[in-house]
Amino acid sequence: MFETIAFDADDTLWHNETYYHEAKKLFAQLLSKYQDTEYARRKLDETEIHNIDIYGYGIKSFTLSMIETAIGLSEGKIDGGELDQILAISKEMLTNEVELFEHAEETLAKLSQRFDLMLITKGDQFEQERKIARSGLSGYFRYIEIVGEKSQESYQALMAKYNLHPNRFLMVGNSLRSDIQPVIAIGGRAIYIPNEHTWFHEELPKEEVDRTAYDELEHIAQLPDHIDRLVKTEYDS
Amino acid sequence: MFETIAFDADDTLWHNETYYHEAKKLFAQLLSKYQDTEYARRKLDETEIHNIDIYGYGIKSFTLSMIETAIGLSEGKIDGGELDQILAISKEMLTNEVELFEHAEETLAKLSQRFDLMLITKGDQFEQERKIARSGLSGYFRYIEIVGEKSQESYQALMAKYNLHPNRFLMVGNSLRSDIQPVIAIGGRAIYIPNEHTWFHEELPKEEVDRTAYDELEHIAQLPDHIDRLVKTEYDS
Repeated sequence: MFETIAFDADDTLWHNETYYHEAKKLFAQLLSKYQDTEYARRKLDETEIHNIDIYGYGIKSFTLSMIETAIGLSEGKIDGGELDQILAISKEMLTNEVELFEHAEETLAKLSQRFDLMLITKGDQFEQERKIARSGLSGYFRYIEIVGEKSQESYQALMAKYNLHPNRFLMVGNSLRSDIQPVIAIGGRAIYIPNEHTWFHEELPKEEVDRTAYDELEHIAQLPDHIDRLVKTEYDS
Repeated sequence: MFETIAFDADDTLWHNETYYHEAKKLFAQLLSKYQDTEYARRKLDETEIHNIDIYGYGIKSFTLSMIETAIGLSEGKIDGGELDQILAISKEMLTNEVELFEHAEETLAKLSQRFDLMLITKGDQFEQERKIARSGLSGYFRYIEIVGEKSQESYQALMAKYNLHPNRFLMVGNSLRSDIQPVIAIGGRAIYIPNEHTWFHEELPKEEVDRTAYDELEHIAQLPDHIDRLVKTEYDS
């Protein structure tokens, strides 16, 4: 049965995308004298995706993409005061409190008594380390891993690194692309807990993932009971 | 005797600070219509240091500090074209070729036959990973570590992680603050190879480090012979 239960962090244990969402709204408002807000947001998304290869993930990358987009949308007319506001949005995101999801901590506390817990998050190392520290949750995890991408290869590398077996590994997360699909592809189990604010880049058409290969829960608080049922089913069979 | 020889990367194996140096020059020129270039450079250094706690190290952090400084120096009058140039400087730094120091590769090739080599670099994970890949040197290293800070604690954590003993550990680098002082403080050996372009933040007054506790070489090509002498001395005594 399971030995290790791994958790995604952003939008699985704590709010993240909601801050980006808020930042994008502020950005579009700020630029509304130059462009329609809907268009501004779409352009920002495009710039962000375009820059991932060169900047990577995280708030600093997002900020540089906001600035690049602002120059374009304003046709170079963006001024110092507006730029200062973009930098202020960014510094606020980098330092604000980590807001845990309801029941996230008690769920970890419960499960950590019976399983080795692992935190697997992707993104900017510096930003993620700070966030994990601010979350106050690190004590529940035996392993904490910040990876560049969550691909089949990176999950396989983690299995090898800690000598884990996919069939005793369960991943919990809100992204079909990063947390579910690659884990079931290497023979692990996965539990999908969708979040209303999931970055579009993390989404995957549901039909691309075998629906019978993972479970879906509404809320992290349902996890301990669900795991009990999985363990029991396995034990009975 | 030594089992592991660890190398710093930036400005020890390849050029790095020289690109920042060049970028700062371009930045000051770009801002010269607003402010004296010497003043602009000093302000940029100040902003950079001030932002380390919030942004961390690396080119993206440096870029955000350039933009913040440019807004200040121009009293908000910086325009889109100038900002575009700052972003272009940054993208160039993020993607340019890694220029190895003369003899760096052959030195690693030689030493890797007799010792376990480790690469220990600090900074932005994403940027450093890309740079290591672009350098073509990763095959020489048994261990590659990207750390947040190079402190006594982080070296000690590496010793524990790989079950290494400080008295069989030698660190080679260009920064008294990051590569030499913390390593000798935990009982390791260190070889200092100064570089003309070392970031001022990496410097330490020489009198703060026990001069008898480390060796100093002029060039990485001298390393294999020097290590032979160290090994021989130890063996004879």
